[in-house]
Amino acid sequence: MRPDRDFFFSLADAAKAETLPRFRSGLSVVNKDAGGFDPVTEGDQAAEAAIRTLIEARFPEHGIFGEEHENIRIDSDEVWVIDPIDGTRAFISGVPVWGTLIGFQERGRSVMGLMEQPFTGERYFADGERSWYFGPDGEREIKVRDCCGLENAILFTTSPHLFQGWEVERFAAVQERVKLFRYGVDCYAYCLLAAGHVDMVIETVLKPYDVGALIPIIEQAGGIITTWDGGRPEAGGSIIAAGSREVHAEAMDMLRQR
Amino acid sequence: MRPDRDFFFSLADAAKAETLPRFRSGLSVVNKDAGGFDPVTEGDQAAEAAIRTLIEARFPEHGIFGEEHENIRIDSDEVWVIDPIDGTRAFISGVPVWGTLIGFQERGRSVMGLMEQPFTGERYFADGERSWYFGPDGEREIKVRDCCGLENAILFTTSPHLFQGWEVERFAAVQERVKLFRYGVDCYAYCLLAAGHVDMVIETVLKPYDVGALIPIIEQAGGIITTWDGGRPEAGGSIIAAGSREVHAEAMDMLRQR
Repeated sequence: MRPDRDFFFSLADAAKAETLPRFRSGLSVVNKDAGGFDPVTEGDQAAEAAIRTLIEARFPEHGIFGEEHENIRIDSDEVWVIDPIDGTRAFISGVPVWGTLIGFQERGRSVMGLMEQPFTGERYFADGERSWYFGPDGEREIKVRDCCGLENAILFTTSPHLFQGWEVERFAAVQERVKLFRYGVDCYAYCLLAAGHVDMVIETVLKPYDVGALIPIIEQAGGIITTWDGGRPEAGGSIIAAGSREVHAEAMDMLRQR
Repeated sequence: MRPDRDFFFSLADAAKAETLPRFRSGLSVVNKDAGGFDPVTEGDQAAEAAIRTLIEARFPEHGIFGEEHENIRIDSDEVWVIDPIDGTRAFISGVPVWGTLIGFQERGRSVMGLMEQPFTGERYFADGERSWYFGPDGEREIKVRDCCGLENAILFTTSPHLFQGWEVERFAAVQERVKLFRYGVDCYAYCLLAAGHVDMVIETVLKPYDVGALIPIIEQAGGIITTWDGGRPEAGGSIIAAGSREVHAEAMDMLRQR
């Protein structure tokens, strides 16, 4: 049985109660990986725990794949894919472009998803058929836009430093072709794409929980999201999302390893 | 005579009425400079006009230095320095980290300033003595923080591509030293610094109206903002802002041309 919108919203509300009070609170940061900078806040862990508690109570047979806690029943037909705070660097820097990502998969395919940004009061939701925006300026169904060619595109990526080896020059070639590019926005960029404000997101080294909630938000808004070689994006890795098939194909042709 | 807080807020409200309805509206963008990408929206021009009208009515003897319209009486003792939409790239990309900047100078020194982000509902204001935050989570006086050394600092810059020539490697050296760096945030970064969420902002090729409002917000929150060689920042150019004098000195020593 699919969850409904009210249940998704109850999960977002539970997460918000853990994340928002800790945003800009000056909370100390724990390094998950002593070798790099991969901060996790108390809010990250507490929000995922809160979400899991609600899912376990309502859908005890569903699997849960999350960033912060142990995965359970992930061979179930229905699996939740959770990133309690996507964009932890934005979170600890005080910039409200992080989000809580809650995705729902059926037999490995992402079919519903929600992104919550509690400081701005924005919520993006894919209900299984259509994508919706709820925010300070109202609520509405959202659709991607077609910018009619890569040369007109606004491109987002989290950081140019994520790319490695042959990826560096392939990404640079696309970046040089577009009209405008911006760095530093994680899940928020995919939602802006779904809502028709920007045209393309290109990233790499993504985890399944980084994209699980975003795939249906983009697809049900009419957009396309795949791996760099055109495959399904549920496993993460190198991802490209676009507002039109033509622009997606144009960029993918430049990114594909030869 | 100095303007009061109510007058500053009336300017911010007037700007908001022009900017916010156009944010994420899909409005077409005009290139100011055919050689590069320097978008100006109708909102930019309309917001500055609205601000100017109110200033002219209340303080007809004051000068006005703005991004979008002709400068007037800028040899007056009192001059307003206005950037109606700082961060136009964020604006046209739908990311709410742009801001309306309204600064007030006495004999060339920035003494009061306001930054308004109408989508998030945030307002940062320096009243001549102290700096204040007004936002969705309340209002309070703000203070910078001391991160106790460059190696603990969170650093912001708009884009690494702004730096030219010898600046590239000097900036890269500082970037390598800090704990965390982020790109893509304009005036919003200075306000996060003033509020004690981040530790340093380093930029270049700034105009006077890019910093006029931000100087008092940072200084009256206890921070320091200068040119890369330690001079007063009112003229813009290459700017460094920090939450403590020690961290500022440490970075400036690395940036200074030898």
